[in-house]
Amino acid sequence: MSSNRPSVRAILDRTKQAGRTSLHAAECAELCRAYDISIPSQALASSASQAVKFAGEIGYPLAMKIASPDILHKTEANGIILNVIDSAEVETAFRHLLARAKAYNADARIDGVLIQKMAVPGVELIVGASTDPSFGKVVAVGVGGVMVEVLNDITFHLAPVSVDEARAMVAAIRSQQFLNGVRGGQAVNREALASLICAVSRLVDDFPEIAEIDLNPVFASPDGAVAADVRIVLDFEPPPERFRPSRDQILIAMNRIMRPESVAIIGASAEDGKIGNSVLKNLINGGYRGRIVPIHPSLDSVLGLKAYRSLLDVPDPVDVAVFAIPARLVAQVLHDCGARKVAGAVLIPSGFAETGNVDLQNEVLAVARQHDIRLMGPNIYGFYYTPQNLCATFCTPYDVKGKVALSSQSGGVGMAILGFSRSTKMGVSAIVGLGNKADIDEDDLLTFFEEDPDTQVIAMHVEDLKDGRSFAEVAKRVSARKPVIMLKAGRTAAGARAARSHTAALAGNDRIYDDVLRHCGVVRAYSLNDMLEFARCLPMIPTPRGENVLIITGAGGSGVLLADACVEFGLKLMTMPPDLDQAFRKFIPPFGAAGNPVDITGGEPPTTYQNTIQLGLQDSRVHSLVLGYWHTIITPPLVFAKLTAEVVEAERRKGNHKPIVASLVGDVEVEEACAYLFDRQIPAYPYTTEKPVAVLGAKYRWARNNGLLAN
Amino acid sequence: MSSNRPSVRAILDRTKQAGRTSLHAAECAELCRAYDISIPSQALASSASQAVKFAGEIGYPLAMKIASPDILHKTEANGIILNVIDSAEVETAFRHLLARAKAYNADARIDGVLIQKMAVPGVELIVGASTDPSFGKVVAVGVGGVMVEVLNDITFHLAPVSVDEARAMVAAIRSQQFLNGVRGGQAVNREALASLICAVSRLVDDFPEIAEIDLNPVFASPDGAVAADVRIVLDFEPPPERFRPSRDQILIAMNRIMRPESVAIIGASAEDGKIGNSVLKNLINGGYRGRIVPIHPSLDSVLGLKAYRSLLDVPDPVDVAVFAIPARLVAQVLHDCGARKVAGAVLIPSGFAETGNVDLQNEVLAVARQHDIRLMGPNIYGFYYTPQNLCATFCTPYDVKGKVALSSQSGGVGMAILGFSRSTKMGVSAIVGLGNKADIDEDDLLTFFEEDPDTQVIAMHVEDLKDGRSFAEVAKRVSARKPVIMLKAGRTAAGARAARSHTAALAGNDRIYDDVLRHCGVVRAYSLNDMLEFARCLPMIPTPRGENVLIITGAGGSGVLLADACVEFGLKLMTMPPDLDQAFRKFIPPFGAAGNPVDITGGEPPTTYQNTIQLGLQDSRVHSLVLGYWHTIITPPLVFAKLTAEVVEAERRKGNHKPIVASLVGDVEVEEACAYLFDRQIPAYPYTTEKPVAVLGAKYRWARNNGLLAN
Repeated sequence: MSSNRPSVRAILDRTKQAGRTSLHAAECAELCRAYDISIPSQALASSASQAVKFAGEIGYPLAMKIASPDILHKTEANGIILNVIDSAEVETAFRHLLARAKAYNADARIDGVLIQKMAVPGVELIVGASTDPSFGKVVAVGVGGVMVEVLNDITFHLAPVSVDEARAMVAAIRSQQFLNGVRGGQAVNREALASLICAVSRLVDDFPEIAEIDLNPVFASPDGAVAADVRIVLDFEPPPERFRPSRDQILIAMNRIMRPESVAIIGASAEDGKIGNSVLKNLINGGYRGRIVPIHPSLDSVLGLKAYRSLLDVPDPVDVAVFAIPARLVAQVLHDCGARKVAGAVLIPSGFAETGNVDLQNEVLAVARQHDIRLMGPNIYGFYYTPQNLCATFCTPYDVKGKVALSSQSGGVGMAILGFSRSTKMGVSAIVGLGNKADIDEDDLLTFFEEDPDTQVIAMHVEDLKDGRSFAEVAKRVSARKPVIMLKAGRTAAGARAARSHTAALAGNDRIYDDVLRHCGVVRAYSLNDMLEFARCLPMIPTPRGENVLIITGAGGSGVLLADACVEFGLKLMTMPPDLDQAFRKFIPPFGAAGNPVDITGGEPPTTYQNTIQLGLQDSRVHSLVLGYWHTIITPPLVFAKLTAEVVEAERRKGNHKPIVASLVGDVEVEEACAYLFDRQIPAYPYTTEKPVAVLGAKYRWARNNGLLAN
Repeated sequence: MSSNRPSVRAILDRTKQAGRTSLHAAECAELCRAYDISIPSQALASSASQAVKFAGEIGYPLAMKIASPDILHKTEANGIILNVIDSAEVETAFRHLLARAKAYNADARIDGVLIQKMAVPGVELIVGASTDPSFGKVVAVGVGGVMVEVLNDITFHLAPVSVDEARAMVAAIRSQQFLNGVRGGQAVNREALASLICAVSRLVDDFPEIAEIDLNPVFASPDGAVAADVRIVLDFEPPPERFRPSRDQILIAMNRIMRPESVAIIGASAEDGKIGNSVLKNLINGGYRGRIVPIHPSLDSVLGLKAYRSLLDVPDPVDVAVFAIPARLVAQVLHDCGARKVAGAVLIPSGFAETGNVDLQNEVLAVARQHDIRLMGPNIYGFYYTPQNLCATFCTPYDVKGKVALSSQSGGVGMAILGFSRSTKMGVSAIVGLGNKADIDEDDLLTFFEEDPDTQVIAMHVEDLKDGRSFAEVAKRVSARKPVIMLKAGRTAAGARAARSHTAALAGNDRIYDDVLRHCGVVRAYSLNDMLEFARCLPMIPTPRGENVLIITGAGGSGVLLADACVEFGLKLMTMPPDLDQAFRKFIPPFGAAGNPVDITGGEPPTTYQNTIQLGLQDSRVHSLVLGYWHTIITPPLVFAKLTAEVVEAERRKGNHKPIVASLVGDVEVEEACAYLFDRQIPAYPYTTEKPVAVLGAKYRWARNNGLLAN
């Protein structure tokens, strides 16, 4: 893959000097040639006679297209005439195109008419690139031509892409039939297409001022991939660089913030109901063992702890300052933090960007940068870090230790995390409020949690990523080790941004999130409850060894619904090998059904559940188990729960760790049985056949997206 | 719309006599002409010279197609040559087509080559009909040609259809852009297309032996809709007619079954743990006030009630007999039931069709028919009907009375209904097990519940409809009065039925369910938990007056997620009128956001919730409210719940009934607040922003599908 950067540089510089933000057809062609992007032979004619001359040189049949910087959508302007077969037709077409352009837009500047060799017909695709406010340059491929809007079948990737990544993008097009050849047609050349995608991605990566590219249509055929029409939009005002400390700097700061030796409370208060009082109480009652330093303008002690007028008076070092004072006073105290080398400021107060007060937030951030202080918030509830018994928050304390770290951008979602955790006894390592994210962002948290031995799974509620590109980079590394779950809010908001190209118009921000998150191995949750349940269950589910899921059910009806759920959540129902089928049949009544689901039928004693679950766990061809329990007198709910836990525990002791989840249908006693199973690290839900399969599906998505599945 | 039935009759009769099950091209053409289905001028040539002759008569350009009963997919066989422009080309094409057919299938019988006027190019659609095992004749329209498999964009309707229904089908095609003219193309003639759909639907309705029709492609253009290729498959073995009593007969029988004056228990037992014991206890302890008649082979009394050796010995009339005896003994006792004019037999025993014992089930059914007894089951838990305190089941009793009737085909799902009901204190009128459905089916239940004053909403778990057509007929009538919810299990099962036409192949049974259920106003639930929550909430939610949904939230983060959920569940976020926006602003802090969601912000006192909820309920432009509560010290959960209930109650007393649902995020106290709201008929959920919107969405789907919404 060659590229001729100087020639592109020269064209872009000329265009900038000319004050233009889009390229002429000839310039587009030159850029394509510089990056080995195939385009048909072509020439720009400014008169009918010149058109005839060029036509003779290029050879018939020809396509003729109006070339005007003011007409971006040529089809709409009837600005394209195809299949022109001789010089007489060229002359007529030239006149027609000028007239049509005039009719479409009387003021349009006309560069001439582009004379182009007709492309070998093939599948019409679109390849393009655009600039996302969060992710920067993204490249796209999809079904194109007139089908672009109809199918909306397009896939995105951060630019630049490797050839492998480009191949994967081609494979991610939903309408694969088009690429394989429709009804006897030949398959397209996927390698040529992948090269084309790479070339486009390198072009926008090499030249940030290329804001949007559309190659539409690209004719993909067995012979190659040719861009029949090219449109390029420029933007010479690059976005500002984001502040990004090194990984080591982040780790040093985040370690001091999450595992501080001392915490100061700015605005500590003895008065019930005040935020500065709640924070102080939570630190004390939560069992934090480090030094707690109340800062109060007049008192000598607060809640029995020695207080200081100012941070400057505190004799010992302070790692974290939790702010419980009005927004307008923050900047001033932050200077004191700087003087005392505080690592992090937890800014609980609101009244910053979220209320329109952007300047105040920027001012505070500037002070923090000046002193090398990391900011959490502002406009947050604070954070919990259970390994340190640290409740640096005004919310109620929480102390159930466990392996899940959660963060939320919104306080409401933070409270839902807290309530759900308490209600389900979910063990957490951390709950962090990020609020306005003036500084500390999800990538900072991920960097810390990656190295945190007390965190196994990370779940994040996100409204926007300030820097999607650095998030993707960190998330890709972290999620290969620990599952990362994201609830991205605002996903259905209409992407109202005006866009001049198809690629940009199709790049509803949410679709880019979807593709990029998948590429970096993040499991996306599409609802608040899913995020919470995934967070709760993923640490309990071992990584599956393969795709074979087996359902064992006491209720045929549940079996059907569980199978529906497996298909819905992307799980593969194992095809039952005949010998295993026989083995199961030994345990179940003659009218039961082996196969998958294994239907042991409703009237069976505990041993039938026991034997079949054990067999499912022990046979190495089965990779995961989904259980459907049906409440009967013969095998009551707690009996089922206990026998299941025993069988699983016995296998776990032998080192046999296999994903297993359960759906329990029956009277209210099944709720207790589910709680019993959950306590023993087996996800189990009452009155639903979907939720247990959804959480198993989430584990599979994580394993698949990170290349951890064998097949 | 004319039709020439005799000519079709004659062709079909000839075909049957000839032992064929598909029609030749010329016969297809004749059928089309008989039903005013536009096709291009055409003739079947058996030699090259004849082809040239016909070509001259029809006029160029021509399409030429192989005509063979053994080559149904001509494109695959390369059996079509388009754009033939003179007699020399006709001769060559004729030879090529014969050779290609030979190469594709050496044994194919060749009828000749079809010479056809080239159709006016237009959008390629498919119109067809097929025969569904449950729904009978269905007609379909979708995007056709090579796009059929790629887009899979097709919509079904029970045949025959009215012109209005056909228009609605065209409007239900997802890729409407094709019909409106892609990129400057002209819109197709929708009326011509609707007529074509009607004609196809009448044709299959008039002639049941037409099993499948494919018109593919149909060229739809501004000028009309022309079927360029026609394929017809016949089946001369009609399915057996289903037994269908009249509505009055159903009502008389179902009334005696659900509201019996006396219930006999066949196999009543004094022994704990026996099914005949559980049923008897449940009848007694459930508080049933009618006569309870134990039938026991030897005892004179069971559990203190006088017992009889046989039904024949019982002096008084018996309405219902609940069977708790082995399957093989059922038929015999059923004769006794017949002698005593019992209206219904509730067949709890298993061991019938579900274990492969189809003959035994048919035998029992035959006895029932002979005596005019309706059968519930076999293989069921029985049923509950709370207005009569009737627990005719071996499961634990349930007595929370309410407006929801539920049925399930599976015992497991029945137990989930029971457990969920008890756990959520859901008021029910009935819970009915249908099991194998040898006789009583969902349409019988619907017919009863329609007239049942104690039932307002019906929710059904269904694995298969024995007679989808009669279900659709009844459901359409009932759901216009009372919401009908259906969980259709087995929806993702691969429709493995071999099909010879495209229409049939695309008619995955589940897609037909989806379309037909929507047409008859049924709200489909796609998960067990959704079915249960819809059943619980729909009676609490008044029918909305219009589409304007307004979100009022204390947590900005919840607001975004609630808005996401509204879009996902098909709800329309109201555009806030400026005067209403001003009115809301009076109640909220200056940095709060009016608009939609109305974000009152987190630190607000109860009055702010009170004032804004009241305003939302009172302004007539707002049709539904979604509340997002955020747990704070200033407005604790129960305070919010109480004020909300008060405001709603005050409006209800004034006759102002408006849908209102709530999402509560916060610590565990929000669970109690949700229960408080549910007790006051306001659906409210903790830790989820999706569920409350999903249930509201279900009510909207019902209202929309039944034409009950103003706009």
